[in-house]
Amino acid sequence: MRLLEERIRRDGVIKPGNVLKVDGFLNHQMDVVLFNEMGKELKRLFPSEKINKILTIEASGIGIACIAAQYFQVPVVFAKKSQSINLDGEQYVTRIESFTHKRVYDVIVSKKYLGKDDHVLIIDDFLANGCAVAGLIELVQSAGAHIEGVGIAVEKGFQKGGELLRSKGLRVESLAIVESMDADTGEIVFREQ
Amino acid sequence: MRLLEERIRRDGVIKPGNVLKVDGFLNHQMDVVLFNEMGKELKRLFPSEKINKILTIEASGIGIACIAAQYFQVPVVFAKKSQSINLDGEQYVTRIESFTHKRVYDVIVSKKYLGKDDHVLIIDDFLANGCAVAGLIELVQSAGAHIEGVGIAVEKGFQKGGELLRSKGLRVESLAIVESMDADTGEIVFREQ
Repeated sequence: MRLLEERIRRDGVIKPGNVLKVDGFLNHQMDVVLFNEMGKELKRLFPSEKINKILTIEASGIGIACIAAQYFQVPVVFAKKSQSINLDGEQYVTRIESFTHKRVYDVIVSKKYLGKDDHVLIIDDFLANGCAVAGLIELVQSAGAHIEGVGIAVEKGFQKGGELLRSKGLRVESLAIVESMDADTGEIVFREQ
Repeated sequence: MRLLEERIRRDGVIKPGNVLKVDGFLNHQMDVVLFNEMGKELKRLFPSEKINKILTIEASGIGIACIAAQYFQVPVVFAKKSQSINLDGEQYVTRIESFTHKRVYDVIVSKKYLGKDDHVLIIDDFLANGCAVAGLIELVQSAGAHIEGVGIAVEKGFQKGGELLRSKGLRVESLAIVESMDADTGEIVFREQ
């Protein structure tokens, strides 16, 4: 998606250690006008009328998922990263290793909001090593629900997550795929799509 | 806001210990159609053209804030609950005590996304004892920015948060204010607005 690529080039910051900071418009400050364009594009990429639910994970996936959900006319469920006294009853649980936070945490979805009749589009802001999305897939599978696809804002194409998910036959669409980036020169190359 | 009150009556669940569960449509599964009506109402309640930024806190405030932001045509910034390697540079920091999670955590906003020229509308899903909103206000004040108001989805009117904030001269608008609720009978009374 050209608009997102241009925005990453303009406002993204490449840091040593393969860190791409997009917190000016994507995951700390959020440009809701851009999110709307991303939502429209995700609907174009996943036109299936079967999709009846969007699943994301707190926190930075929630904004994109909610804006996109307007184009799908479906509710959003976000997986929670830690147990809360407000979440009682039965839950699906999995463990996810965070690249960003360098730790492992439990991720839960209430069984009330994910079931075998659901056709789920998974949405997240980043795909790198794929741990977060793999965890969400596990939650969907625990529920016996169907995965219609995975929609990502920014994929780090040089990390293994995207390849791993696609090799399982999943439809993964990333609005921008970073093929390579250089913290010294600031150069960033996107995969042609 | 009648629509939200009706939804709370229909799908909210009152639990012992003054817990009101609205996770079916507000803060776990999110009804984006309802959020749009809430966003429109917040714009009606805060028509000021000065508002140039919405500030919320992860995770459950983000969805409402993003949908509402479409009516204000401004970006959203969400305060983060823990330090992350993706947040470098200088930050505003405060500590918040969570009623739900029964713990204290650091909350941060990058100095890049909040400054003295900002006119901020604070949005959150719940107002109970007011600790989260008080923390956000502290962040805004640290930045030397202006608080235009506080927009809340559900206020627990029998807890002290709303009164405390209003007594400071802040404009606080809650779309539904629960005056009292009874876990045994399931009865819930809303404040007339």
